[in-house]
Amino acid sequence: MMITAAKTKLMPNRRLAFWFDFASTYAYLSAMRIDAMAALASVEVEWRPFLLGPIFADQGWSTSPFQLYPAKGRYMVRDIGRIAESRNLTFQLPEPFPQNSVQAARVALVGARRGWINDVSKALFQVQFATGKAIDDGAVLGQVLDSLGLDKIEIMEAARSPDIKLQLRAATAEAAALGIFGAPTFITSDGELFWGDDRLPMAVEWAQRF
Amino acid sequence: MMITAAKTKLMPNRRLAFWFDFASTYAYLSAMRIDAMAALASVEVEWRPFLLGPIFADQGWSTSPFQLYPAKGRYMVRDIGRIAESRNLTFQLPEPFPQNSVQAARVALVGARRGWINDVSKALFQVQFATGKAIDDGAVLGQVLDSLGLDKIEIMEAARSPDIKLQLRAATAEAAALGIFGAPTFITSDGELFWGDDRLPMAVEWAQRF
Repeated sequence: MMITAAKTKLMPNRRLAFWFDFASTYAYLSAMRIDAMAALASVEVEWRPFLLGPIFADQGWSTSPFQLYPAKGRYMVRDIGRIAESRNLTFQLPEPFPQNSVQAARVALVGARRGWINDVSKALFQVQFATGKAIDDGAVLGQVLDSLGLDKIEIMEAARSPDIKLQLRAATAEAAALGIFGAPTFITSDGELFWGDDRLPMAVEWAQRF
Repeated sequence: MMITAAKTKLMPNRRLAFWFDFASTYAYLSAMRIDAMAALASVEVEWRPFLLGPIFADQGWSTSPFQLYPAKGRYMVRDIGRIAESRNLTFQLPEPFPQNSVQAARVALVGARRGWINDVSKALFQVQFATGKAIDDGAVLGQVLDSLGLDKIEIMEAARSPDIKLQLRAATAEAAALGIFGAPTFITSDGELFWGDDRLPMAVEWAQRF
C-alpha cells in the first residue's frame, strides 16, 4: 500500500479525466467501476461533469440519440441491463429519460471544490439508475446530500451561485473543444481520448504507460 | 477435434448471425476475428451482408454518422487505429469513406450460395481497410475473386442478377425488421442482439449457452 502510494506520487502524468453527464446510462456503468479500476492501476481519476445537451444541439440533436432513434434506444436499455447484471449492478431507467442533469452537475462541481465529488457523483448515478428516481427533483438531490452527511441547504445554494453556473458552462465548452461528442469520455494526460464505458480498460491501460 | 465437431452437431442453436455492411470499419475488426472466436466456442457463424444506407436514411441520415459528425469521425479513425494495432491488423481508411458497398455485398451473397462467403468477405474487408482500395471498383473486386481462385467474370455477372439484387434488398429489410441500426450486429438463435465489435465476446458467450 505504501509502495503504491509512493509510485503514484512519482508519476504525476498517470492521470485520467473522466468526463460525464449525469443523464448518461453508460456513464453510470463507468462511475460504478472507475475508481476501483484506476486505484488498481495507480492511476488518478479526475471527475469532470459537463452537459451533453449543448454538444448534441451543435450536432443538430434536440435530445438524446436514444430518444431520436428508437431502435437504438431500445437496444441501449437491453444492453445496459445485460452489462449491469454481469457486474451485479441494479438498473432502472428513470422517467422521463434523459433526465435534466444541470442541477446534479452543479452540485458535483461544488463537491469538486470541497473534495467529495466522487462520492456525491456515484450517489447521484445510483439514485437515478439503480432506483429510477428523478435527479432534477430538489428533494431527491437533498436526500442524496443528506445521506452523505452534507449540508443540503448550504450546498444547493452554492450550486445555484453564478460562479458554479459559469464553471459548468466553461466545462461544457472545454469538453467540446477537446473533441468530446458523447459520454463517458476518458482523456489521458497526453491527450488520448477514449469514448464509452467499453473503452475504460484501454484508457486505464494507456494512462498506466507513464 | 472430433469431439468439438460432434458437440456442434448436437447443438443446432449454438449459432450467431453476423450482420455487416462492407463499408463499416468496425465490421472489419469483427470480420477479422469472428470465425476464430466462434470456432473456439463451438459456435457456428452465419455471415449476413446487408446495406446500412437505407437504414441510415430511415433515421434521417444521408451518409455515415462518421461523416455527419466530424468529431465522431475523427475519433473513429483513431479508435480503429489503436484497436487494429493491438490486434496486429493494418488499417487504412479508403478514399472516399464510406465506400459504396452494394457490389461487394452482392458478390458476398453469391458466395453465400456457393460456400465461400467467409473467405471472400474477409478478403474484401482486407483489401478495403488494410490497403485502402476502393471496393466499388470492378477491377479491385475482380482481383479479390482472382486471388481466391474464383471465376470473376461469371461471379460478377451472377452478382448483377435480379435474383441477387432482390436478395440484398430482402436482407436489408430483414435487418431493419430485426431492430438493426448499425454494424456489426450479432444475433443469437434466441434473438438476442449485440451491436458493435466490442460486444462480439459477449455475443459468442451468449450463443455458447445452448
